[in-house]
Order: sequence, then C-alpha cells, then structure tokens
Amino acid sequence: MDDIIFGKNAVTEALIAGNREINKILISKNIHSDAKLNKIKELAKENGIIFQFVAKEKFLPYAEFNHQGIIAQISPVIYKDLDDFLEEEHNSVVILDGIEDSHNLGAIIRTCVCAGVSGIIIPSRRNVQVNAIVEKTSAGAINHIPIIKVNSLVNAVQKLKNSDWWVVATDASAKDNYYDINYTDMKFAIIMGAEHAGVSKSLLKLSDFIVKIPMQNNFNSLNVSNALSAIIFESVRQRICGRTECNESG
Amino acid sequence: MDDIIFGKNAVTEALIAGNREINKILISKNIHSDAKLNKIKELAKENGIIFQFVAKEKFLPYAEFNHQGIIAQISPVIYKDLDDFLEEEHNSVVILDGIEDSHNLGAIIRTCVCAGVSGIIIPSRRNVQVNAIVEKTSAGAINHIPIIKVNSLVNAVQKLKNSDWWVVATDASAKDNYYDINYTDMKFAIIMGAEHAGVSKSLLKLSDFIVKIPMQNNFNSLNVSNALSAIIFESVRQRICGRTECNESG
Repeated sequence: MDDIIFGKNAVTEALIAGNREINKILISKNIHSDAKLNKIKELAKENGIIFQFVAKEKFLPYAEFNHQGIIAQISPVIYKDLDDFLEEEHNSVVILDGIEDSHNLGAIIRTCVCAGVSGIIIPSRRNVQVNAIVEKTSAGAINHIPIIKVNSLVNAVQKLKNSDWWVVATDASAKDNYYDINYTDMKFAIIMGAEHAGVSKSLLKLSDFIVKIPMQNNFNSLNVSNALSAIIFESVRQRICGRTECNESG
Repeated sequence: MDDIIFGKNAVTEALIAGNREINKILISKNIHSDAKLNKIKELAKENGIIFQFVAKEKFLPYAEFNHQGIIAQISPVIYKDLDDFLEEEHNSVVILDGIEDSHNLGAIIRTCVCAGVSGIIIPSRRNVQVNAIVEKTSAGAINHIPIIKVNSLVNAVQKLKNSDWWVVATDASAKDNYYDINYTDMKFAIIMGAEHAGVSKSLLKLSDFIVKIPMQNNFNSLNVSNALSAIIFESVRQRICGRTECNESG
C-alpha cells in the first residue's frame, strides 16, 4: 500500500533521496511549468519514474492538502531499528513523547535535519505518525534523517543509557536552563513532551538532566518545535564555539 | 465588523488580556464541561460578557478551523503606531518581511512573547495579516505583544536606525553566524524574510548586521518560526549569561 506525498518540495526531495520507491507522479494539467516542476520531470526521467499529466479533478480527494497540483505515490517511510541505530556512530537524537500535531512533527523533522541531529525516536502509539501532512511540512527533510519507531519509550531510553548516551528531558518546572548543559562532550538524547502534558513522569525519572527554557513573560506556551529549535541550536553553537559557563550577571 | 477567534486557549487569553471588546461567546451544546471551559464562563461572567450555548450546526461555517466547539466575536486587533512604540522603553523588535503562512505568524508571535520581544512589525501588504488562524496558532499570545503595521518596511527600518536601534537581517549566504552578534548592549531589530524569497535586498542594504544559522547538513530549509526561535533565544541567553566570543575550536 503506497503513501501519497504532495507538493513540489516533498516530491523533489523524495526523488533526490531515492531511498523509497516512487510508483507514479501525477501532475495537474492546470499548473504552470516552472523551474521546480522541470526539475521534477528531469529527475523522474533519470530514474525511470512515470509521470502523468491529469485533469485537476483527480486532485479532488486531496483538496484538504496544499498539494500545488502535484502528488506522488510512494512506498511508506522505512523506520529504522533502534538497535541498528545504536551500533552506528551518532551523537544526538531527539525523542518525541506524545506529539499530536502533524505540522509540529514536520517542523521538528526539518529543524533536526538542519541542526545535524542523527535521528528521531517516536513511540508507535500516542504520537502522530509520519503521514502526508508530516511529509509536506517537513519539506522533504523526512528523507534525510532516520525515524526510529519503538513500542516503549522507557525501554528505548534505558537502551540509550546502557549505550553511554546522556538523556536530557525538558520540563517547564526544571531548575536548570537548557544552556546550562554541556553538549560538547557527550552523545545526547533530548526528550520533548506532548503539546499539553509535557514529558511523562516515567521518562523524567530516567533522565540525567531536566531543563527548561527561561520564559521572559508570564506566558509559558512555546510551540514544541520552536522550543526544540532553541535547544538544539544551542547544542550546535556549543559544538562549534565551545562551551562557556553562564555568568548570570548578564 | 467583529473578528472571530476560536478555541479554548484563544478565547481564555482574550478574556484575560481584556484589551479588546468581546461581543459574544458561542459554546457548542455538544462539548463537555472541563476546567478550561469553566474558567471561560467564570471570566465572561466577571466581565459581563454574554455566552450562549448553541447547536453544533452553528459551527458549520467554521468547520475548517479547529474550533473545539467555542468561538468568540471580538473587536479586531488594535495595531500599534511605530512612532508611539519608539517613544516607549523597548529593547527588541522582530520585523517580518513577507511571511505568507498564518501558522508561521502565529508561532512567531508565541515565540516572541515567550522570549520577551517588545513588538512585531509587519508590512500592510505582501505579508499575512492577523486572522483567525493566526489568533488560534498564537494560543492567545497575540494579546501580549504589540503588533505594529507599517506601509513601508524600508521607512520603518530607517526610523529604527534614527532612534539608535541596530538592525540584524537574516540571510542564508551571510558570513557571520547569528551567535557572533552581541545582543546584550543594544536595542535590536531582527528581520526575518519570506519563506521562499528571504529578506528583501532593500532591507539587507539598510541592515547593520547580516547573519545566518549554520546548517549542519546540505539541507537549508529551516521553518521561519524555528529559525527565529534559535536566534531570539540566543539573545535571551546572552542577556542572562553575558556574551562570550566564539572560540571556533569547539
């Protein structure tokens, strides 16, 4: 059973990545040719993938999506096994504990790829899975990072710890700030919690560090992908610049 | 002409902020009572605002929105005048140059409130305006930060510079990284560009600094709200911790 991906960026990135089988690309007769569309046709030809120009009515079942007049039938995302991942050389992973919103998952995947995160771990239940909206929102980033699906996040965190990974959970009531952690000399996992409930107690208990983002107003409602972005790019900054202690005098 | 806002958080935050006139709150008879709904009813009573329980069919015109069975008719957002803003004590502002996506604007507003940004400047054309999706995505943050609408971003940036503000633009081809800037000793404006086109040339020319986020993969497509989050929380970190030079040895 094929998945559907839609939009020019998602289709282009899937063609470039080439790690999933594309059965067919459908292009609306009503869209104008442009550089992106030409690139898609060129890549499809190179890879022997069929593309068809079809009446716009073919896109009616996908009206709820911003499909830009182009969809592709593609084999589902191949999830990576955690044990295989742990046998390879990696230094960072993001763990998602109960993220419900497809747009948030898509944005998180993009941020992780841009920040060089090695992989993303999601639970097989109580979390949005990779669907068409996630693929679209990720702008093709989904093809550039392994997604690891596990039955139990608790077991996954235990395995990471047994393999010398350090686990950082985020929680609004933490004492430490996210930049108090030294990300430069360890393999780390960052756990981001559900939009409302936060990180589960069982995972907080297992974590080596619990950190917050210091809120500058009496308004504690940062979007989860934006919270992750602040944290993960601090780890990038530290790895490039080296870490310095926080001098709270400002 | 009233605007519509929808969802429990957006309605609650509008009631708490109290800076806009709420004409009426409509609640679907089909939603279950919970703590958030009780809070809304309590706040409405306190402020003499009418709330009505209506048949779910009343919500059909809003089916495309995730309204959670609650909407409010509210006076439009009051935009702030740039000259008035500049006469007050502020130290940071975000300028949006051609952001098209409502979800992105909503997320940016949340991030700015959480990071203590003093205001957001948007152009009156070629940029998404504050609409019902922006209000919902901002989770009520829209009521906690002034939005400044200007006819010309070029004129607005000139005014900021004339008032001793420093202007930082983001551009993927910049030489400096965003953490190379010292945010601790200046009033700064950060310009974020459109999702595809980036910051306009005319604004880049006027900027005092041009910075990028260093991408860790050959994939340069960070969502604009996530890019802003990385930059703005670096400014928060510096203001809390003090700035240190980047030592590129890592």
